[in-house]
Amino acid sequence: MACAQLQISQIVQAHTILKSVAHKYADKPVLVLGGRNDDVRKVAEGYGFKHAYTTLDVLAWKPEVWPYHDLLPEERATAKPVDFSRTPISAIFVFHDPRNWSLDIQVMVDVIRSRGLIGEPYLDAPADQQPVELVFCNPDLLWKSDFSRSRLGQGAFREAFQAVYQAVVGKTYPHVQYGKPTTETYKFAEKVLREQLEELHGSPAEQMPPVYMVGDNPESDIAGANGAGWPSILVRTGVYDPTQGPPTHTPTHTAENVAEAVRWAIDREVGRKAD
Amino acid sequence: MACAQLQISQIVQAHTILKSVAHKYADKPVLVLGGRNDDVRKVAEGYGFKHAYTTLDVLAWKPEVWPYHDLLPEERATAKPVDFSRTPISAIFVFHDPRNWSLDIQVMVDVIRSRGLIGEPYLDAPADQQPVELVFCNPDLLWKSDFSRSRLGQGAFREAFQAVYQAVVGKTYPHVQYGKPTTETYKFAEKVLREQLEELHGSPAEQMPPVYMVGDNPESDIAGANGAGWPSILVRTGVYDPTQGPPTHTPTHTAENVAEAVRWAIDREVGRKAD
Repeated sequence: MACAQLQISQIVQAHTILKSVAHKYADKPVLVLGGRNDDVRKVAEGYGFKHAYTTLDVLAWKPEVWPYHDLLPEERATAKPVDFSRTPISAIFVFHDPRNWSLDIQVMVDVIRSRGLIGEPYLDAPADQQPVELVFCNPDLLWKSDFSRSRLGQGAFREAFQAVYQAVVGKTYPHVQYGKPTTETYKFAEKVLREQLEELHGSPAEQMPPVYMVGDNPESDIAGANGAGWPSILVRTGVYDPTQGPPTHTPTHTAENVAEAVRWAIDREVGRKAD
Repeated sequence: MACAQLQISQIVQAHTILKSVAHKYADKPVLVLGGRNDDVRKVAEGYGFKHAYTTLDVLAWKPEVWPYHDLLPEERATAKPVDFSRTPISAIFVFHDPRNWSLDIQVMVDVIRSRGLIGEPYLDAPADQQPVELVFCNPDLLWKSDFSRSRLGQGAFREAFQAVYQAVVGKTYPHVQYGKPTTETYKFAEKVLREQLEELHGSPAEQMPPVYMVGDNPESDIAGANGAGWPSILVRTGVYDPTQGPPTHTPTHTAENVAEAVRWAIDREVGRKAD
């Protein structure tokens, strides 16, 4: 049995879905959040965003935008400062979990309130200009790291942003949420799987075979799979803790770990074909 | 006219009021938040807290508590790591505006949910142990810096913390709020003024002369002064922006700047005596 090398086109991360919206913003300045230095800019450029800026670029332009963050040498070296009072940002995409919540929230509030600009008068009332689009890629409140308790995820950052925005402006800001358990993300994953299948067979797939979801988080992995009509298998090696009661979303099956889950799914499909 | 040197005892900052609660926590481990490196520890120790720890101490103990913050050399050098899984934190005091919102919120959630410990099982149900006390010193959502728009303040951090706590636990966490416009802070300031007066006269002050409040923020400075029964003067050099409509709390008087405000107050008192 040959072992195929994993291709980039076979991997779907939470932010991979942004490839499908990049064409809309290809030539417009956008703000991209999350990750270290300007790593997120490189990912965004790889997806087709030609003018992606980070909040560190904003700070390199004017440090007084957020006086509580001193740029590190490597942050300064990778920053691309432009005049953000004259560069209208069209959209804000939260790719990864932000490292600098307060800087990011301050810049998001600035950009949204001044219709894309920073440090300019606030225009909270609807204008002829399109409002800034806000997109989050991962709604997980918590994720399982190597620490004994689950850590806060991008969903917690979204809650923090909306609470601050609400306190300052009086209402939350409309946003698009991608990632599990949203329908968009499961449809996108099915599209990627279908393309893989067609590539393997060299022709359009007639019928999509069953897709199994294996995951550790009932509220994202399992809820999304159930919504998409995929059989779901909940593993006990992550966020889900059986001592805290039954899972908030019921999976098709529960397994000790991923290996056991995959074995169960294969056995089930083989059994189905044998019937 | 001689120019007296300013004494530390004449200054009241938002967190100065914590001097009056330090005796309660003098010998207990507490978490102190805000500021750079371990500056806040030094302030807390000066107030009488003998076992004050920062979230950077926690990270120096176990970096995996928050994987999105790499300790800087000076942060590591000033950190005092102890075993926080065996050091029960009694209270959390937010002295200054936090620099690392996500680290601080994660550690606060950990400490509160495990009744003072970090990385230990969650004990959300009431136990025989006292819950961790949470105290914020400054409720200002916004403050006027040298940037063209007001920046987010400690009140925004509180909103972010409570939103995340609510999302994770299902309810907000009870907290004590000091700072303007709270009654406690105005009473504390009056006590400090009375002590100054007694020191000047060498004997207990018979009657407290009128106290004037000069401030730039209607919702903190002016609201608090009005509540405390102090005449209030709103200046136009800060948060208050006359182009955005009348102030949310009406001052006794409005002045262009602090010098003009002080002159008006003196003239008013001199006139009152001359009547």
